[in-house]
Order: sequence, then structure tokens, then C-alpha cells
Amino acid sequence: MAPQPSTAVDRKSDELIGITVSKTENFPQWYQEVVIKAEMVEYYGEVAGLFVLRPMTMFIWSEMRKWFQKHLDEMGIGEASFPLFLSSKSLAKEQDHIEGFAPELAWVTKAGEKNLDVPVAIRPTSEAIMYPYYSKWIRSHRDLPLRLNQWNSVVRWETKQTTPFLRTREFLWQEGHTAHLTEEEAGKEVLEILELYAKIYEDLLAVPVVRGRKTENERFAGGYYTMTLEGYIPSNGRGIQGATSHCLGQNFSKMFDIAVQDPAGEGHVHVWQNSWAFSTRVIGVMVMIHGDDKGLVLPPRVAKIQVVIVPVGISKKTTAEEKDQLLDQADEIRATLKKDAHLRVDVDAREGYTPAWKFNDWELKGVPLRLEFGPKDAMKGVVSYTQRYNNEKGTIPITEITTTVPKMLEEIQKGMYSRADATFKEHRRVVTAWDDVMGALDNKDLVLIPFCLDGKCEDQIKELTTKVEEEQGAPSMGMKSLCIPFEQPSALEEGTKCLNPECEKLAKQWTMFGRSY
Amino acid sequence: MAPQPSTAVDRKSDELIGITVSKTENFPQWYQEVVIKAEMVEYYGEVAGLFVLRPMTMFIWSEMRKWFQKHLDEMGIGEASFPLFLSSKSLAKEQDHIEGFAPELAWVTKAGEKNLDVPVAIRPTSEAIMYPYYSKWIRSHRDLPLRLNQWNSVVRWETKQTTPFLRTREFLWQEGHTAHLTEEEAGKEVLEILELYAKIYEDLLAVPVVRGRKTENERFAGGYYTMTLEGYIPSNGRGIQGATSHCLGQNFSKMFDIAVQDPAGEGHVHVWQNSWAFSTRVIGVMVMIHGDDKGLVLPPRVAKIQVVIVPVGISKKTTAEEKDQLLDQADEIRATLKKDAHLRVDVDAREGYTPAWKFNDWELKGVPLRLEFGPKDAMKGVVSYTQRYNNEKGTIPITEITTTVPKMLEEIQKGMYSRADATFKEHRRVVTAWDDVMGALDNKDLVLIPFCLDGKCEDQIKELTTKVEEEQGAPSMGMKSLCIPFEQPSALEEGTKCLNPECEKLAKQWTMFGRSY
Repeated sequence: MAPQPSTAVDRKSDELIGITVSKTENFPQWYQEVVIKAEMVEYYGEVAGLFVLRPMTMFIWSEMRKWFQKHLDEMGIGEASFPLFLSSKSLAKEQDHIEGFAPELAWVTKAGEKNLDVPVAIRPTSEAIMYPYYSKWIRSHRDLPLRLNQWNSVVRWETKQTTPFLRTREFLWQEGHTAHLTEEEAGKEVLEILELYAKIYEDLLAVPVVRGRKTENERFAGGYYTMTLEGYIPSNGRGIQGATSHCLGQNFSKMFDIAVQDPAGEGHVHVWQNSWAFSTRVIGVMVMIHGDDKGLVLPPRVAKIQVVIVPVGISKKTTAEEKDQLLDQADEIRATLKKDAHLRVDVDAREGYTPAWKFNDWELKGVPLRLEFGPKDAMKGVVSYTQRYNNEKGTIPITEITTTVPKMLEEIQKGMYSRADATFKEHRRVVTAWDDVMGALDNKDLVLIPFCLDGKCEDQIKELTTKVEEEQGAPSMGMKSLCIPFEQPSALEEGTKCLNPECEKLAKQWTMFGRSY
Repeated sequence: MAPQPSTAVDRKSDELIGITVSKTENFPQWYQEVVIKAEMVEYYGEVAGLFVLRPMTMFIWSEMRKWFQKHLDEMGIGEASFPLFLSSKSLAKEQDHIEGFAPELAWVTKAGEKNLDVPVAIRPTSEAIMYPYYSKWIRSHRDLPLRLNQWNSVVRWETKQTTPFLRTREFLWQEGHTAHLTEEEAGKEVLEILELYAKIYEDLLAVPVVRGRKTENERFAGGYYTMTLEGYIPSNGRGIQGATSHCLGQNFSKMFDIAVQDPAGEGHVHVWQNSWAFSTRVIGVMVMIHGDDKGLVLPPRVAKIQVVIVPVGISKKTTAEEKDQLLDQADEIRATLKKDAHLRVDVDAREGYTPAWKFNDWELKGVPLRLEFGPKDAMKGVVSYTQRYNNEKGTIPITEITTTVPKMLEEIQKGMYSRADATFKEHRRVVTAWDDVMGALDNKDLVLIPFCLDGKCEDQIKELTTKVEEEQGAPSMGMKSLCIPFEQPSALEEGTKCLNPECEKLAKQWTMFGRSY
């Protein structure tokens, strides 16, 4: 195949750089176009369900990683790196846990031309790889707590349709695995970590989340209880699991013989374990929530380029000298913002593209703040700005840029969060009559309902909400429980029944249900 | 299997914590004991040739990673993450390159219970995974340079004996892959990166290296030329490759159709590519060079714990109050060093262990500086210190610790480098008579010899130096070329012959040969 070199002119005419569908009309296609055209990912042609993560994405991941690692360091949680492979031997130890993963395990059966004596699976998660060593290393209560985290990728050979970030056959994550002497200590850490995850969403990605506990049906297989962050995608009204922090109880420590002599009594006690993880999925959630018909919208704190300066007002009448002077000034602004305000700034001095083309390009890529600088601005000693997320425009005196621009980025960060938070709040509806449930779902709401917490009742609720839709000829997803929010809308009145009309039991807690990813 | 909890007392009697062989007597076993007993790695029982990297190791890796990443950021090299798998299809494109890796490829042939239609290999390196996208993304010379780096792990199913860090079936590394318009630009980057790698060795790990160019026989398969850092292991007199920076020339860009329209002329030009990598192997080199019969010796800049404070002089006569006061003071010293000097400091207040036991334990783990603090020190207002690498002892006034301790750590860092550098220099021998070669090798020297640079001659030199040993009844490794050092010992006199007695050609450059890893 001959290469296809192109010039700037080719590019302008050949490539349709904008998003071709609206977010409202065709959300799945909109999403796919955004993540590709904003240069976040490429579909990996070689193997289905895998994606190339490009610098725009890796910058975001790396900012989250640095932030989280700093907190892990402060908490005294060590970094480790366990191997990529596990053998069928250790898998056999933890049937409950691994049953869910078995259909998705990728098996290495050959090295070079030779068949392996014992095939090995690529980790879908690392409990079975790590815990035999916890058993070895934890010999006394003095070795507790043992707290390790690793950053790696895991492989789950999905058979369902894959989607960039949200469901992929390989993804990046961190997985923390800790062991404690008591349930209380373990429980404290579960919440500490959940709060760090919440801050990643809220403070870095400007994404609102609801903190809560998973119901028995939805908790991690083999664990004790699961705390979760639940996000919300306005475009389709679905809930999406954001990150989870699990207390595994003593289930795994019994399977893997992780025990110490009881410092407070006789005999030995099995340790209390936690595991917690967040993955590149969070980036997909962020894209879905903030993006618009022009493309990606990035919160300033994780944007690789926070500010782009586009020189404007250059025409055929502009002399070469005037043009050079303008570009020099633009570059001075860039240098000042970088040096004095520590911002990530680019000047788009590309030849052969119109300012309008450049505006579209940077809007597509989600750069939070655009500064335009032309001869008129230069004369007035200002730069003109456009905020990406709300299209707000204005001017800033050049003398004030090092204070105004960082402040504006902070406001954008907060503004993005507030806007998303308001939307999420609007669509979290307290529902106390079963007949209102379907309407709420169709209104793209998540619902908070009085719920008995029983697993079979939960299954039934899913069925009931699926069926109703099908009868109307529009088969649609039933709702499932997302979490029991820590922040309950109110105290349940005594005697409140579970909302499921076919359930006789009393409600125990307000529980958030919804259609979901 | 019942768990085997142990108390502190059990531990003292049951576990032999020290290294049981001397570095001189049995170097391979010494190395194995050090990396395990200093808690750097665990052998992974499930699958041979794989190792668990523990926090002590990951701290070192993470410090190197942060340092290198900072420089990549400054150079404008983006971070990416390409998938773990490649298919046989793309492998077929680059026969030369992949031939060397083929016997070591791990093949995934099954997902769950189903056989894959097309088996996929786990990356041994990512050229074949990445370059199809370089072809797609590089459409014009404006897209150049394209410079990406990724941090990941690669799998090479070694059939030879594996050794922690040095040869393992999975290892962590970074791989940089860049594309440039001209050979000159590519060449400049190759050297820039090599210099960064050299700084990692010299400034972080206190390990001396020789910068040079690989001979044709030893360069990267499929590449154009390879620059390298070569280290030296005094215990066995072997050279060890430290890190490599390759110019791939246009070989891969021709295979993968990565080309642009020539901005300076007619037609199109294939881009010039580089690839460069360093891996967890560097940690093994550091252990081998600095370690001693007591165990690991860590350079302060990469030590997870830089200073350990051990309370001493507590006897049966010490009252509880006196003891508490001493521990409080020790902790104050820790806090001061952390807060004011930003050092990584621990107090070893473990009950039930003697100071002597603790000294051994921290020496085994390589902590660069030990501070002892007892009632006598307290009375004099000093702390007693022992430097790990040279056993130097003395006292420091407590009022001066925040200036003296960081200064001392800097001196330790430099002292470790100087000592290792002196040893390496002693064992780099300029040899101008063939008859001196074997003696030098047996003296654990690397040799610098006049060499014709011919590949066949190089093969012959290896054979000749292997044979001689065998005749003497002690079969030993032949020498191979390590690099053509940038810093030549002298200008070769005109007419100097290649040192190989069976070679007729003239020498072209001084070349460093040696037995090697």
C-alpha cells in the first residue's frame, strides 16, 4: 500500500473534523466520534475490543494517578507489582470469586512453538495471585496492617459489545489489597478510599457521584460488603458505577489461610481484608457527562492543554513584519502564563488554516479556554476569551492575565461541576408510588425508593420494570439497584412498605434504582 | 493447611535473617538471598520465571520513573498506552525484527472455554503494535516529530535460567518510539535519551556506566544503529548491558508505510525512527554492584527508607518513664528530619528485638544511614550514626541534624558512586597484545582492544576466547563486544592491526569486549 501524504490543504478539504451527529439524537455514535476525533483513543484493528489510549487520555490518567498515589503514600500504602499470570491451581482455591470471571479468562497455552505443560490465565483481577503471598508475609499481628497497591492492566475477554473506556477487553486500573487485624480498621479504610475516589470524580473530573453501599445482589462476588460511587449519564438516564471499595471480610483469608495469633486472646484470627479499584472507565464517564455537540469538554485540572492561544485578524493586508510581531506577542503571553501561572498553554501558529477551522479543532478537543489575539486586541492591550463549556466570551487586560486566567480556569472547573451536579440532582427522584416508577425511568430519572433489601425482591423489581415496557411494544432495560445512598433522603417512616407491589415486606432503606450500564 | 502464626520470639529463633554466603564465595546464591531477604522480590511459585516486586523495589522503580517522566514531559514526549496483544498478521510484516522474539512469544489461544479464531501473542516489545498507527497518524511533515512513550510490562517466555531483575519472563519497562523527518533529528534524540539513562544510573543508582555504540553484531535486530550503556559487575568481571537507545533508520517506516511528502523536494520520504527502553533490570545491576556480605546497600536517592533511628541503651534498669521519654525524643528527631529536611525516616520501636538484631535487619535491607539514640546520646545532645556502605561511625549534635544528615546522605550517594567508579576503571584494561587478553579476563577485567569492527571477526574472537579456557579444563564464557566507547582511550595509531591474531584487517576503533550477561 502506498502512503498517502497530505498537505494542510488536503486535510482541510478531505477530513470532516467535527462531530456529525448530535448528542441528543444518537448518543452512542456521538460518543464514539468524540473519543476518536478528539484523539483520545483509536480502535485497535488487530484484535477486537482493544483500544489505543492516546496522550490526551494518558494525561488525564496520569494526573489522576499522581493525585491518588500521593494520598496512598501519605496513608503508608506500599506499591507492588505482581505477575500478569495465574495458574489453574490457585484459581481452584476461590470458586465463588472466580466463577464470575471464568468465561472471560484469556488463556496462554503456548510459548513459541511449544505447548505449556500447565496453561496460565492472564489476570482479570489479582486476588488469587496476591493472597498466597499475604499468607506467607503475615506471620504475626505485628505484620498488620499489610497494605499494597498496584497499577497495571487487566484482561477480561468480554463477549458483549465493547465501548471505549466503559467496556474493553484490557483496561488500566489500580487495585489495592489490604489486610487488617479487625473489622473496624478494615471498615475505616474502605470509606477513606471511597472518599478519595469521590474526590477524583468531583475535584479532578468535575463529575458528581452518589456515595453508597451496594445491595447483596450487586456486591463483589466473594466479598463481605461493597461501597460504591454511582454516576449518572443524562443523555440516556442511566446510572453508571464509578469506583468500588470492597470489604472482603474474612472470606478470602479463610480460603488462603491468612491468619495470626490473636494478640488479645487465645487461638488465631483470620485477617480482615479489603480490595478497591478504579479504572480508565472514569474517563468515559467524564466524556459522556461534559461533552457536547461540538465535541469533548475537558475540566481544566485534567486538560493536557488548558489554554490555547489562536492568533486572529491576519489578512492579506497584514505585512510580514506585523504578523511576526503578533505571533511574538502571542508567544510572550504563552510564556508568561506558563512561567508565572504554571498553566499548560499552547499557541496555534499553524499555517494554512483559518482561525475558524482552528476554533473548531480546539473545541472538538475540549480545551477549556481559548484566547484569541489579533491586531485589534493588541491595540487595546487585551486578549479575547471563549470558555469552552458555556461559550462565555469577553476580554482580559494583558496586564492581568496571570491572575485572571488561573482564576477563570478554577471557575470553569467549578462551573462544570455545578452544572453536572444540578442535572444529576434533578434526575434523582424520590418515588413513593410504584405507578410513578416507569414514568420516572422514561423521564431519564434514577429513583430513590423504599426497599426491603431482599435479593429476590430486587430481581423481581428488575423483571417488573422490564416487562411493563415490553407490553407497550418498546422493550427496554429493567431497573436495578445502584446503591443504598449514605445520604438518605429522609428517615423512613415506621411501617413503610417496600415499594415493589408484589413484596409484602417492610422497607429497610431508601435505595437508588435505575437503568444502568 | 493450618496457618502458622509466629510471635516475635518465634521469629528471632526461627528465621535466619542474615545472608548465609559471602558475595565473593558464591555470588549467584548471594544475589538470590539478598533480593529475597531484603524483601525486594518473591519467587512466584505459580509460574516459573516470574517474580513479585515488593514495595522496596517498586519505590526504586517509581523514583526512576518520576525522574525520567519529568524529562520526557520537558522534551514534549507524549504518554500512550497500546494494547497488550498483537496478532500474527502484523507480526508477519517485520520478519527480521520478530525472528529473534518468535521462540519467546506467549500465545493466547483460548478465552473462557472457547478457542480464539486467531491466536494473539502478548507483546515482547511494541513495534508491531504501534507502527501501524504511526502510519495512520503521520499524514504530513507537520505531524512530525511524533514522539510517544509508554510504561508497561512485556513478556518474553525465556527458556534459559531466569534471575530476578536480570532475566525474567515478564518485566516492567518504558518503551519510547519516535518518528522524525531527518536522520539528524533522530540521531540527536538517540543521544539525548542515552544521556538521561546514564544520569539514572549515575545520579540515582550511583552506578558507573560506559556510553558507546553497539557493533553490527550486537545492535537491535531490524534497526540501524544502537547506542548503549554498559555496566560492570566486579564479582564475576562481567559486563552488563544497562539500557539502549536505538535509531531504527527507515527500516520500519518502509515496512509499515510511514511516509510524508518531502517538504524540501519532490516525492515522499519515509520517516526516521527511534526506539529506546530501560527496564527493571537496572535494579538488579544496582544490587550486584553495591551489595555486600551483610546484604543490600541502597543509594540514598532511591532508598524507601533513607534513615532509620534505632533506640538503644534500654535495659532492665530503665524505668517505663525513661523509656517513653527516649522513644518520644527519637520520634521527635524523625519528625524533624521529615519536616525540615524532607527525608524518609523511620523509627524502629519494635518490642522484643535487641538493638543488635535491628541493626542486622536494617543492614540487610540496605538503609543508607542508621542513627542510634540512647540515654547517653540524649545526655550529650547527640545521635550516633553508622553509614551503611562504608561502616563509618560518629556522632551528630541534635541541633545540627537537619543540615548534617541531608549533607551526609549526599556524601554517601557520591561516595558509593566514586567507589564503584574506581573499581570499574581499574577493571577496564587497554590491551594491545592478544596474549594478554585471557589473563585480563581471568583477572575479571573488561578489555579495550583495537578492533576491525567486522562481524565475522567478532564471532571468531568469541570462539577463540572460549576455546582457550576449555583447553585448560575450565570451560568458560568467551568474550563478546560490549560497545565502541564514545570516549576512546586514545587515537588509534595509523596502521594498527585488529587484535584478533587470525584477522588480517586494520583496526578501526577501540572496542570494549568482555564476558557478559
